[in-house]
Amino acid sequence: MSATIIDGKALADQLSMALKKEVAALKEKGTTPGLVVLLVGDNQASQVYVRNKEKRAQELGIHSIVERLPADISETELLERVAFYNQHQEYHGILVQLPLPKHINEEKIILAIDPKKDVDGFHPINMGKLLIGKPDALPCTPYGIMKMLEAYDVEIAGKQAVVIGRSNIVGKPMAQLLLMKDATVTITHSKTQNLAELAKTADILVAAIGQGHFVTKDFVKPGAVVIDVGMNHDENGKLIGDVKFDEVKEIASMITPVPRGVGPMTITMLMAQTVDHAKRTLNP
Amino acid sequence: MSATIIDGKALADQLSMALKKEVAALKEKGTTPGLVVLLVGDNQASQVYVRNKEKRAQELGIHSIVERLPADISETELLERVAFYNQHQEYHGILVQLPLPKHINEEKIILAIDPKKDVDGFHPINMGKLLIGKPDALPCTPYGIMKMLEAYDVEIAGKQAVVIGRSNIVGKPMAQLLLMKDATVTITHSKTQNLAELAKTADILVAAIGQGHFVTKDFVKPGAVVIDVGMNHDENGKLIGDVKFDEVKEIASMITPVPRGVGPMTITMLMAQTVDHAKRTLNP
Repeated sequence: MSATIIDGKALADQLSMALKKEVAALKEKGTTPGLVVLLVGDNQASQVYVRNKEKRAQELGIHSIVERLPADISETELLERVAFYNQHQEYHGILVQLPLPKHINEEKIILAIDPKKDVDGFHPINMGKLLIGKPDALPCTPYGIMKMLEAYDVEIAGKQAVVIGRSNIVGKPMAQLLLMKDATVTITHSKTQNLAELAKTADILVAAIGQGHFVTKDFVKPGAVVIDVGMNHDENGKLIGDVKFDEVKEIASMITPVPRGVGPMTITMLMAQTVDHAKRTLNP
Repeated sequence: MSATIIDGKALADQLSMALKKEVAALKEKGTTPGLVVLLVGDNQASQVYVRNKEKRAQELGIHSIVERLPADISETELLERVAFYNQHQEYHGILVQLPLPKHINEEKIILAIDPKKDVDGFHPINMGKLLIGKPDALPCTPYGIMKMLEAYDVEIAGKQAVVIGRSNIVGKPMAQLLLMKDATVTITHSKTQNLAELAKTADILVAAIGQGHFVTKDFVKPGAVVIDVGMNHDENGKLIGDVKFDEVKEIASMITPVPRGVGPMTITMLMAQTVDHAKRTLNP
């Protein structure tokens, strides 16, 4: 039997509709949620991501600007821009698009963002709140995945979850969120031995490796829920996930496709956090 | 064959000797490492812990004071005491002994401690730095365990580690530290199913449950390294660990005893972090 396809696009659209209403309601109260994206240099992928964020924000009625800064901007100057927006009341969310040029210390920049305006959830204090189980702003990809699991009534408590990949923006926060919902969580990575065997113990398998079609059916327990975070391009330039969708969908109980899976949810949670931050300025 | 006993007491003594020399050298440069412990109310266990910390600090030449505060102190007054010591140049470490009385918000107090004076590693920003793999101050128990594994040349990279317990002060930071050293890490807890079976996959098993003799030989793979964080009392009031030492030591390759295992290391790492913080005021 073929798996249920978790439709991230449809869920993102549904959440966006609700967000649009919230934004309208906030505007009536005199507050327009504002998001500023700082884009340094001309990384091609970043340009695309930023354009998508801007477009989505506009669709929802969020006031959004992109400040484009030259690739040779100094760390001090970038810190000054962050400080400027920390103070600026019109912007409830500040997003510094990563990666930054090599001469700039990313951690230092992220640390400079007012945690209350951190919509990426990457500020160490927000990471720390997540680790102690009292989350505030969350990294958007794992946050979106939790929303998908919730929308599709996936049971998490007591289940075995395996996360493949230990990045700061997906793998590690993902593990913490699953743990908070009482899953038994295993974090695996490039140094893990018997990865397929371990993955096969998972009731919930999250693939965030960044290698196209890495997860074959040999990694998947029949009936597992499989979440594919990958955004890779095959030899023909086609967007593919970390999971070999066609064969895995035959044994999984649920699976996210690529595209129209995790991707649309990530950007939606970014908008949701911007709106949340704006709401808090009304009810601090 | 019986396991090697990991002698936490001997290792702690050895580290303490080195610390004592560091303290003496700092004093010659005009800086005496200072530690202030804020003790609210008269919790019996806390009294004992605090006395042990004070005693150890004095042995090492660390300037240490305990400020005893009444159980009915207000949150605001306690925050004022923290703020006072944040400013006070004589104290490089501030430790607020937990638990606090119920009318005080522990998180709020911990958040008020200057992260640079946080010697418990509980400040969310220090927790966040740990989660992103750039740790600063660390929770002392998992820090001490990593030192023990290092001292006994336990191979961690690529090994299977299982942590039983997901507290903020032991289980969760422990998992992050093992992950940083490239272990494949599983965090288990009260909602975990087949706990014994899972624990038996571990090359490194850390028991931090708080239930005397919970981990029997059925939880342990022959040849595993077993770390016992438990401090429980049996029906006769005798101090026992979470691990059934007598039977587990027959199959483990290495094991920590209770007492003289993890306990002495925890307090030593607290002193080490106090000294580190003092050093940094010299070389910021």
